[in-house]
Amino acid sequence: MPLRKVGIKGIRMPISFTRLGSKRVLLVPSFDVFIDLPPDRKGIDASRSYEAVADVFSMFAKRTYRLEDLCALIANELLNRHEYATRAEVKARAEAVVERTTPKSSISTFEPYKVYAKAVSRLIEGSVHTYRMVGVKVVGVTACPCVMEGIKELSKTELAEALGIHGLDPKLLDVLPIATHMQRSEGFLLMDSPEGYDVDVSKLIDIVEGAMSAPTYELLKRVDEVEIVLRAVSNARFVEDSIRFMAKGLVETFKELPDETKVLLAQRSEESIHKHDMVAIRKATLGGLRRELFSLNEE
Amino acid sequence: MPLRKVGIKGIRMPISFTRLGSKRVLLVPSFDVFIDLPPDRKGIDASRSYEAVADVFSMFAKRTYRLEDLCALIANELLNRHEYATRAEVKARAEAVVERTTPKSSISTFEPYKVYAKAVSRLIEGSVHTYRMVGVKVVGVTACPCVMEGIKELSKTELAEALGIHGLDPKLLDVLPIATHMQRSEGFLLMDSPEGYDVDVSKLIDIVEGAMSAPTYELLKRVDEVEIVLRAVSNARFVEDSIRFMAKGLVETFKELPDETKVLLAQRSEESIHKHDMVAIRKATLGGLRRELFSLNEE
Amino acid sequence: MPLRKVGIKGIRMPISFTRLGSKRVLLVPSFDVFIDLPPDRKGIDASRSYEAVADVFSMFAKRTYRLEDLCALIANELLNRHEYATRAEVKARAEAVVERTTPKSSISTFEPYKVYAKAVSRLIEGSVHTYRMVGVKVVGVTACPCVMEGIKELSKTELAEALGIHGLDPKLLDVLPIATHMQRSEGFLLMDSPEGYDVDVSKLIDIVEGAMSAPTYELLKRVDEVEIVLRAVSNARFVEDSIRFMAKGLVETFKELPDETKVLLAQRSEESIHKHDMVAIRKATLGGLRRELFSLNEE
Amino acid sequence: MPLRKVGIKGIRMPISFTRLGSKRVLLVPSFDVFIDLPPDRKGIDASRSYEAVADVFSMFAKRTYRLEDLCALIANELLNRHEYATRAEVKARAEAVVERTTPKSSISTFEPYKVYAKAVSRLIEGSVHTYRMVGVKVVGVTACPCVMEGIKELSKTELAEALGIHGLDPKLLDVLPIATHMQRSEGFLLMDSPEGYDVDVSKLIDIVEGAMSAPTYELLKRVDEVEIVLRAVSNARFVEDSIRFMAKGLVETFKELPDETKVLLAQRSEESIHKHDMVAIRKATLGGLRRELFSLNEE
Repeated sequence: MPLRKVGIKGIRMPISFTRLGSKRVLLVPSFDVFIDLPPDRKGIDASRSYEAVADVFSMFAKRTYRLEDLCALIANELLNRHEYATRAEVKARAEAVVERTTPKSSISTFEPYKVYAKAVSRLIEGSVHTYRMVGVKVVGVTACPCVMEGIKELSKTELAEALGIHGLDPKLLDVLPIATHMQRSEGFLLMDSPEGYDVDVSKLIDIVEGAMSAPTYELLKRVDEVEIVLRAVSNARFVEDSIRFMAKGLVETFKELPDETKVLLAQRSEESIHKHDMVAIRKATLGGLRRELFSLNEE
Repeated sequence: MPLRKVGIKGIRMPISFTRLGSKRVLLVPSFDVFIDLPPDRKGIDASRSYEAVADVFSMFAKRTYRLEDLCALIANELLNRHEYATRAEVKARAEAVVERTTPKSSISTFEPYKVYAKAVSRLIEGSVHTYRMVGVKVVGVTACPCVMEGIKELSKTELAEALGIHGLDPKLLDVLPIATHMQRSEGFLLMDSPEGYDVDVSKLIDIVEGAMSAPTYELLKRVDEVEIVLRAVSNARFVEDSIRFMAKGLVETFKELPDETKVLLAQRSEESIHKHDMVAIRKATLGGLRRELFSLNEE
Repeated sequence: MPLRKVGIKGIRMPISFTRLGSKRVLLVPSFDVFIDLPPDRKGIDASRSYEAVADVFSMFAKRTYRLEDLCALIANELLNRHEYATRAEVKARAEAVVERTTPKSSISTFEPYKVYAKAVSRLIEGSVHTYRMVGVKVVGVTACPCVMEGIKELSKTELAEALGIHGLDPKLLDVLPIATHMQRSEGFLLMDSPEGYDVDVSKLIDIVEGAMSAPTYELLKRVDEVEIVLRAVSNARFVEDSIRFMAKGLVETFKELPDETKVLLAQRSEESIHKHDMVAIRKATLGGLRRELFSLNEE
Repeated sequence: MPLRKVGIKGIRMPISFTRLGSKRVLLVPSFDVFIDLPPDRKGIDASRSYEAVADVFSMFAKRTYRLEDLCALIANELLNRHEYATRAEVKARAEAVVERTTPKSSISTFEPYKVYAKAVSRLIEGSVHTYRMVGVKVVGVTACPCVMEGIKELSKTELAEALGIHGLDPKLLDVLPIATHMQRSEGFLLMDSPEGYDVDVSKLIDIVEGAMSAPTYELLKRVDEVEIVLRAVSNARFVEDSIRFMAKGLVETFKELPDETKVLLAQRSEESIHKHDMVAIRKATLGGLRRELFSLNEE
């Protein structure tokens, strides 16, 4: 019986270097590696899979590399060392802690981002075909537009009563829509990194961060807090909206990437007024997103 | 060499009944059980520890019990079955999903709460002394008072500029403090459940839920969302404040409990404008809290 | 822009009843629900999604149902309540704690199993088409065959030296292969539950449990421990082998199910001599597995 | 109302250097920081707590430091910046991935270890008193001695029958005790790191790893696997035994540390023949352990 994927989950490697835009950052990556197994083989030689990771890592750890390229090197090495395998898959995840600047007070702050990469190598008629993917997970804040709408739809009498109950100033009657719930939210973007193009991880981070109501920072002085809250209420967005802004950001940023580039967009909000999370997910190609946004602009 | 705690973590038992106020609710508890080991014993007989749990559970599962009483029965049974042990500790945790009503639209909603219990039995000069603890973890929402303060402290000019940048209505100038960040927050309360008193878990849930800016619900129609948001901004609270409101709630609710009753209060907010969490913790006795609140009222 | 999946993750419902073989067991299910969103809609009405779950649950909670049927009822209700949606997806997961009997001493023990269900309803030309899936995750033990092989391949001299180093009895020379490493292992099986057939969850549990080297029990008296260890070393299996035994079990157990029934088989071993896990995965149809096993028997 | 601990959980900092024995290794630490709050203060200024971490980190990140010294520097800085606080607590955790060599084949392998540190600074009559703790968590394998015992106690007839049932060679009759269950196990050791002494983290790792039946490696060629399995069965140990070997290792390794040095020892085995874990815990001082081991040797 053939098996599609046999392998090792959770291989930890020491610190290595990658690039975010013009910055060189350090990562501690964790790898999952798999090969396929033909019907006539009882099991894989797991130690060879580990060695493929460790050897590639040892050769390249001191250079600056793209995480998806490292995955591709490992995938090819897996095929080399398992002569019976025709498909090798390598997934990597790591956290990059990057120095940023607070929005108003301009002080140093260190922000964590998750970085993902994947490579699949296939042996087809004697030659190896490899594709790469790269992705990020970014935490930000979303402010909910629905409560703002809800408040607008209440009659003055209902609102006055509600304000009275809650001991709030009646002057709030005109401007109440600015009160809404916010929450920690997490955007995820995974996409093809086609051969010959440079998909810059720092641009992915900017796209996902910019698709939420506001970015978040580990350090915020009071002026920064006010800034972030005002920015969030001015950009109130549903999880559905974050997906749309990610799509727009992708189309505008990666003009040179081919239409068939596959993308996966997801947003998850830890709703502050609920105990559950809201989620929106979209799978598409860059070409599909381009057509949708073009027809939207036409209207 | 003596060992303080040897035992089993993660024993799962089938569904059983407990009481929240006047309601009978179902729980799927998970148990950790430990005994001490005297210097002259190589190891415990672990299967006896499991049997103590399973047998007590089988006898009492169909009755309605308090989770901490079940823990105490198991702790005593552990001492019975391990003749070399002088101390037995049992911890239980479970989730209770309770039917509630939405705040304005009055529809059914099912809210999950975590319930904790603990019992320690000690063999002192031939007789067994047992003490019990009971606790809850409740999710709610906190709105931050600091941004409100921060906005008040800005000059009209600074605010007008900030509003302009963010495209917000200048009418907001007077009432902007209502804009602040909110986040999912989690309150935790663990306390002694002294012999002869009835510490009602549903009262603990009410105390913790009431100490945050507003409760949260799995179901909220738009009128409910508006209500919860207004309630939260009218009760903007730091994690430190939630601890204070828990303390006040405890003192007012459990007037009959003795001064030496130990309590542990904790609040954790998943800050929506940061990637990290804010935490406040207080350990005290009911007597200590009573004195502090009394002197506060005196002032 | 259309979105494929918008919804809620982590809806908790109170206890409900399901069936494992002839037994009626209690579950506390957790649900994720999603609908699609057409290009012309800004967002979903999330409270309607919650109400679909709560209302179906309230109607059926006291009856005994199959978890995948409950998911299908909710999926259909999601389409009813979101008139703009054409696809609804519902996932449920729950833990069933089932009374079993120890293998030799025949005492009661309570074993936890994870149960999964999924339903997708699609609106195609005015009529609703629903498919269901059901699955289980079961913990057991695997003993590794490779060390046994490795020991057999050593020369008598090498073995004698190794035994000497480790202070083991030289009589072990002939029979040493019985020493091998074991570890906690987890099998996962997810499959279509086609309309008109009855895929009994208790049979899935038996298939997955039987595909490992031995089942595990929460309670084991010493005679039971010896029995399980002997059973495991007599059935030493790689993760790859567990997949093969699951496939065999499926083909033999569900003779009446159609060839196009999709199945997903996975095994994960927490290798005791490594810090990482070994994984094997297979996707197939029942028809595909039948053909493979038939040709295997022919040989 | 005073609060004992108010602070931030989960501050991520970029990569920094620490020392394991003679090696310089890279860590990505995560920090929790707390201060106390006097009765007359409403809340802490959280941004100052973050800045204390970021500033100390920026100054020392490029040097090689002990993680507990970094915690102490941050704790002192917390007191400096919160003039109302009298107690500051800092906890750090990180993962060190260290290059090792396989036991027989002598190839490179990268092993992950968890490292912990803590510092508490107290302001007492105008001067600051700081204490430090350091700890490690190490994964290894434990083989169970009880099944070996159980098999020895069976009569020849019972064994012969058991062997027959399981299709095992009757030659196993004499040597069967070598068959036992093994599992992934995790040892934890946390201890005071008193001023003026050097508690080397690499020694802690060796003590904890040596207290289990055998170490585990990410890479094992077949000769290494045989070696590890033989080593484990020759050192079959309960969780209770691992605590005893940790205690022995501590006493022998840290002869120069004072008697009042506090230690916490814990072992957790993911039992392969059960679905739950076995745990043993000991709190002691080095002096206490020294006396116990001395009286043991006297006997």
